[in-house]
Amino acid sequence: MKGKLIGIGVGPGDPELVTLKAINMIKNLDIVVCPESKQGKGSFAFDIAKQYISSMTEILTLVFPMVHDKQVMQKAWQENAKIIEKKVREGKKVGFITLGDPAVYSTYMYILPFLSDDIRVETIPGITSFSAVAATQNLPIVLWEESFGVTALKEGAESVKKAIDAYDNLVIMKPSHDPKLLAQILIEKGLDDKFVLISKCSTDEEIITENIDDLKDGNVPYLSTLIVKRKGIR
Amino acid sequence: MKGKLIGIGVGPGDPELVTLKAINMIKNLDIVVCPESKQGKGSFAFDIAKQYISSMTEILTLVFPMVHDKQVMQKAWQENAKIIEKKVREGKKVGFITLGDPAVYSTYMYILPFLSDDIRVETIPGITSFSAVAATQNLPIVLWEESFGVTALKEGAESVKKAIDAYDNLVIMKPSHDPKLLAQILIEKGLDDKFVLISKCSTDEEIITENIDDLKDGNVPYLSTLIVKRKGIR
Repeated sequence: MKGKLIGIGVGPGDPELVTLKAINMIKNLDIVVCPESKQGKGSFAFDIAKQYISSMTEILTLVFPMVHDKQVMQKAWQENAKIIEKKVREGKKVGFITLGDPAVYSTYMYILPFLSDDIRVETIPGITSFSAVAATQNLPIVLWEESFGVTALKEGAESVKKAIDAYDNLVIMKPSHDPKLLAQILIEKGLDDKFVLISKCSTDEEIITENIDDLKDGNVPYLSTLIVKRKGIR
Repeated sequence: MKGKLIGIGVGPGDPELVTLKAINMIKNLDIVVCPESKQGKGSFAFDIAKQYISSMTEILTLVFPMVHDKQVMQKAWQENAKIIEKKVREGKKVGFITLGDPAVYSTYMYILPFLSDDIRVETIPGITSFSAVAATQNLPIVLWEESFGVTALKEGAESVKKAIDAYDNLVIMKPSHDPKLLAQILIEKGLDDKFVLISKCSTDEEIITENIDDLKDGNVPYLSTLIVKRKGIR
C-alpha cells in the first residue's frame, strides 16, 4: 500500500517549535486532517502548521466533538477513521496534525484502534505544552532525585489530589475545566504559592501568573497548563 | 548585557527531531557548550546538533561528572556556571545543548542557580525521550481519562513501586541503572507483559523489546526508556 497515515505533533503554538521532521512531512502531504471540536470552530493545530502546508495539499476538516457522552465521541472516532482509511487506501499520504505531542492527550490516538490492521501508520512526536511552559520560566519540571506526574483536571478533584500527593512535581492540563476547584485544591494542599499557570504558551497572547486569585476568578483560557512544584517555583 | 545563555533541547537522537527554533539558535551561537560525563567521553547532544553548528562557533566541552557524591557534582555545576557566566559577560551568545528536553532531567538546569541574577537566560524546549519512544510505537502514553508519571530508576525500588501504584501509565527513565531490579518490580506488580523498552530511540541503533527476559539479562544500554501501561501496550 502506497498510502499512509501520519500523526504529526505540531507543538504548543509557536510555528518555530515544530521539529524539522514534522515540517518536512507536512510539506509533502497529499491531505492534511485538521481536527475541530465543533463544525466551523477552527483548528489551532492548523493555525500553527498552515505556513508549512503546500498549496497542493488538500485540507480535510473533521469534527471530533468533546462531549461527556462517550458513545457520541466513539461514533465520531469510528466515522472519521473510516474517512481517513478510505483516503489512505486511495494511496494518499494523510497527515493528522495534533497540538503538542501525539502521545499526550491527543485526539489522533483515539482513531488508531478503528483503522484496519493493514493501514500503515507513522507518528512524529511534538513539543508538549508542559515542556514549553517550563522553558518560558527556565524551570526544571523534574531534577534527578525527583519524579513528576501529568494529569488533566477533567478527571475530577480526587484524582488531582491523589496525583498531587504522589509526586513532588505535577503538571495539570486543562485547568480551564474548573479553575475555582483547582484553586480550592491548591489552597487545601498548601500549594497556592507554589505553582505557575500559563495560557496560550509561546504565542503572542501568552499570559503567565503565579497568583492564586487568577484561578479563583475562574477566568482561565482553554489553552492553559499549570505546573505545581512542592519545593516552590523559584 | 549583549550576552546570553540559551539552554537548547536537541531531542532524543534523530537530528530531524530538533525544532526549527533550536536549529536557528544553534546556527547563530558564538559558543556551544557540550556537556560530557567524563573527560573525552564525548557528548551525544553534540552528535545530534553538530550538523547545525557553524564553523564560526566555538565548541566548549565541559565535564559534568555523574557520581553519587552530590558535593562533587555541585562543585562541577558551580565551576562550569562560572566559566559560562564569564563568556556571557564578554557578550557571547552561549548555547548549552541538552539531550531531550531541558525541563526533564537535564544537567543544564543545575547550573542556573549558580549564575548571577543579571545573566540573561533563555530555554528552548525539546522532544522528550518518552514522546519519541511512544511515537515509534504509535502508542498513547496517556488518554483523556488517565494520568501518567515519569520517574528515574536511580531513585530506587520503593519510589518506582510507589510511582507504578499511583498511575496507570508510567515512564521509567534510566532503566539501564539496574535492569534486573526493574524486571523484579515489573514481575511483582504483574506488569511484566505490559511494557515496552526502547534503547537509542530514533537512531540507527534503535532496539525495541517487550520481552521481560531482556531486562532480566541486565544488558540494557545507557540511552533507554521504558513505558509501562497497566492496560497493556497493544
